[in-house]
Amino acid sequence: MANSPSGDAVLDRVMRLFAALEEQPSQTPGDLVAAARLPRTTGYRLIRELRTRGLLALTDGGEIVVGRRVWEIAQHAPIHRELRTAALPYMQDVNAVVRQTTQLSVLADDGALIVERLSRHGAVANPAEVATTMPAHLTSMGHVLLAFAPQRTAERWWAEHGDRAEAARPELRRELAEARRRGHGLLVGVINTETAGLSVPVLDPRGRALAALTVVVPRDSPEIPQFLMALQTAARGISRAMPQPTVPLNETPVVRSPQSPAD
Amino acid sequence: MANSPSGDAVLDRVMRLFAALEEQPSQTPGDLVAAARLPRTTGYRLIRELRTRGLLALTDGGEIVVGRRVWEIAQHAPIHRELRTAALPYMQDVNAVVRQTTQLSVLADDGALIVERLSRHGAVANPAEVATTMPAHLTSMGHVLLAFAPQRTAERWWAEHGDRAEAARPELRRELAEARRRGHGLLVGVINTETAGLSVPVLDPRGRALAALTVVVPRDSPEIPQFLMALQTAARGISRAMPQPTVPLNETPVVRSPQSPAD
Repeated sequence: MANSPSGDAVLDRVMRLFAALEEQPSQTPGDLVAAARLPRTTGYRLIRELRTRGLLALTDGGEIVVGRRVWEIAQHAPIHRELRTAALPYMQDVNAVVRQTTQLSVLADDGALIVERLSRHGAVANPAEVATTMPAHLTSMGHVLLAFAPQRTAERWWAEHGDRAEAARPELRRELAEARRRGHGLLVGVINTETAGLSVPVLDPRGRALAALTVVVPRDSPEIPQFLMALQTAARGISRAMPQPTVPLNETPVVRSPQSPAD
Repeated sequence: MANSPSGDAVLDRVMRLFAALEEQPSQTPGDLVAAARLPRTTGYRLIRELRTRGLLALTDGGEIVVGRRVWEIAQHAPIHRELRTAALPYMQDVNAVVRQTTQLSVLADDGALIVERLSRHGAVANPAEVATTMPAHLTSMGHVLLAFAPQRTAERWWAEHGDRAEAARPELRRELAEARRRGHGLLVGVINTETAGLSVPVLDPRGRALAALTVVVPRDSPEIPQFLMALQTAARGISRAMPQPTVPLNETPVVRSPQSPAD
């Protein structure tokens, strides 16, 4: 690093502070510095610098939280600006018709990342559940995301997760082939014994999944065929509403963020 | 800066890259480096480091965009996690009843910052309009945000913006006193000659505005009294749904981010 010997170190420390806030979104400065495994002086100074820039904020109760500036910048991320914005009206339509939890997700490094979730009555569910990931091999959304993934993405997923996933779900390859053939995924009682997950892909013009649209319904619901049609209709609307050309919403970072030890 | 002489510089450069992406959310690396006024080598290296951490991403078309990791972190910001999550179901109710653009905003450094906006038919409007700010002295949301602001926030706003605002809107103090007395703000034909803005505050338990809830309606609508009751009802629901104790959603950064020159 020619000009900025500590640039890497600063960014890694910043990422560790934010990762600690993802675990526990409101912490005293002391707890946060400890959770991020930063030296005390370094940690306090970095928190102050991030507050100055609005990336962190201090609550009335003296705890550090993620700052509004991060939220402002995030509005411009394609996952929000393109996918969620295109999808939300159609998700509201599905939610109004199906009256069960409706979810939008994308394939991320370690599973299916929930982008938006509407609960039964139109309320947004526990926000802790948005931006979390579910296991791809155990969810209907994961199945359609894998079944309709771009080839390179699917290959990378199988190389990284295939062995462990097939050990846990031996029928996975057959299920993905079925999801591909039928155009939807249906998993009954896997994550929750009382419910079924029903998912369809949101496809780009080349037939690759940009996202999965899912409803979680009672496992013995006789209306699953109707729900499927509602999902398929909405997924086509979302595809049409997405700006072109598409951005790689399923793209993983160039390199995984290092799990750097405390310095 | 004892341990990290270039920490400030790195963070300032990062902020300049993100600020440039707020102006133009998808740019070639070369254009982005130029827009952020960074030296070419420094800029390319920083973009690479930010991509490694998922804070930036590269589109299929070779352009740099805000990365998904920023979006994930932003889900934990109080403005999203607490305010928007509490408000969205009630905004949907207002939108269903009033059938006009429904907005949620907070008082920010330079105006009323739009947190969420639902359009007439339940669709989310142009995302460029979320996370932008409107002039506080010329909008009904700005009026209720100022009229019900915590005293320290109001004093700071008047010190910074008062002279310019009163020059542009000589009746401002009277309007704010009226908004305070009536519990709502109504501005007709100011931003758009054809429309009226009608806003109520979302109050914390001490009667201070956490946010403003607004509908934009045709200027001569005979239904404004009914719309006001819908807004007041929804605002009470949002107040009740907000987690306690409240965080300083109206807080500005400790120090304004410096407009640092190119290095």
